[in-house]
Amino acid sequence: MSRKLLTIKYIGTNYHGWQVQKNGVSVQQKICEALNKLYSHEVNATGCSRTDSGVHALKYCLHFDDDKNFDNSTIVSALNSYLPNDIAVVFCKSVNQDFHARYSVKQKTYIYKLYTGVRDPFLEGFAYHYKGTLDIDKINEFAKHLTGTHDFAAFCSSKTTVKSTVRTIFEASASKKGNITTFKFSANGFLYNMVRILVGTLIYVSEGKIDVLDAEKIIASRERKNAGKTAPAYGLYLYDVKY
Amino acid sequence: MSRKLLTIKYIGTNYHGWQVQKNGVSVQQKICEALNKLYSHEVNATGCSRTDSGVHALKYCLHFDDDKNFDNSTIVSALNSYLPNDIAVVFCKSVNQDFHARYSVKQKTYIYKLYTGVRDPFLEGFAYHYKGTLDIDKINEFAKHLTGTHDFAAFCSSKTTVKSTVRTIFEASASKKGNITTFKFSANGFLYNMVRILVGTLIYVSEGKIDVLDAEKIIASRERKNAGKTAPAYGLYLYDVKY
Repeated sequence: MSRKLLTIKYIGTNYHGWQVQKNGVSVQQKICEALNKLYSHEVNATGCSRTDSGVHALKYCLHFDDDKNFDNSTIVSALNSYLPNDIAVVFCKSVNQDFHARYSVKQKTYIYKLYTGVRDPFLEGFAYHYKGTLDIDKINEFAKHLTGTHDFAAFCSSKTTVKSTVRTIFEASASKKGNITTFKFSANGFLYNMVRILVGTLIYVSEGKIDVLDAEKIIASRERKNAGKTAPAYGLYLYDVKY
Repeated sequence: MSRKLLTIKYIGTNYHGWQVQKNGVSVQQKICEALNKLYSHEVNATGCSRTDSGVHALKYCLHFDDDKNFDNSTIVSALNSYLPNDIAVVFCKSVNQDFHARYSVKQKTYIYKLYTGVRDPFLEGFAYHYKGTLDIDKINEFAKHLTGTHDFAAFCSSKTTVKSTVRTIFEASASKKGNITTFKFSANGFLYNMVRILVGTLIYVSEGKIDVLDAEKIIASRERKNAGKTAPAYGLYLYDVKY
């Protein structure tokens, strides 16, 4: 028996997130179906995080237990032949038996893509089309107050069930290239809808609906209503996972 | 009456190219349907080129005659509201009555995208997945002999109906960034399937199936069978049109 860490990439458009759901097809379901074919019995896949419905992943990690001692390269090519076009296995490596795709995570990074200007078919479903211009300086001014260890209850969907809403953000920033703005958030963990609420809040800061000096006040309030709207899922990408 | 030049962008996946077809939906049909709605009568759209089924366009130009003196910005936003998500109008400007989207073209540029390595869902349908590594130096060595004025009959589908197969290529090159190779071709015009055959030929050069020194010999032969395979349509993009 050997534990395997699998790195995958997927377009989230057609999936109800990672986690197996009653009401729709999930990425986990597709991965498990492929693993079941390869191993000829049920194999459980444990992911590094739930992701919201429609969210994409440039790097998503999961683990499973291999009881047939397949080569890592065989696992990659076999799973890729079973998976649909919008999910691909990038990498497979052997890890210690105590490795856990979710609990061993040290840092996760999400990016959020937004574009301005005329509607672009090539960005449809892959970046949020924002009708206006963003004030990147103001956004970054507010964003720097988000870094550090804080109680992020204000930036968390009320549907959450977690015990602690304290997280440490290592990086929060926005950068612009042409008409595309990329928000980047690295943390030791994220709350339910947290990145999308952070992005919605930063958009409000740019629009002057939230004062650029109010970051600490909003965090301290622990009130979801003081933060901005939840930005649409399809601009969000899980970008990196560090163990 | 004022002639308008329209710049559009489209994902070719769901279309049988630009030209109206009996057997499938074309981009021209979608543009004409949108124009007909805006003008409340039939409006003809003349494109800068046919494009093969499945080929994309980052910049495609067409002209039509406006008999209602609409503002250019009104035309852009109205047409965009009528068009499907995979076609967008980027720009509209007024041109002289003797301007012709096809006959006035001075230079057209196509790019072709190819990627290597593990299957990538985000490039599916947007770049050709090549299983191997390309020798960019060899490709560029061969490509430089393609520039200039030549009879390109060897690089033209036998289905062509054009009188002259002589064209002038201003640029033919390939460049690599990460695992993506981009081929670029600028010319005063292209023959039927020409760019896809040029790409297929350059791949053969990289693979040693065509000798890097044989460019002039193949051109002189005027025989389609001496060139490489026709690369798949979905890696090809009309990139620029100059008048």
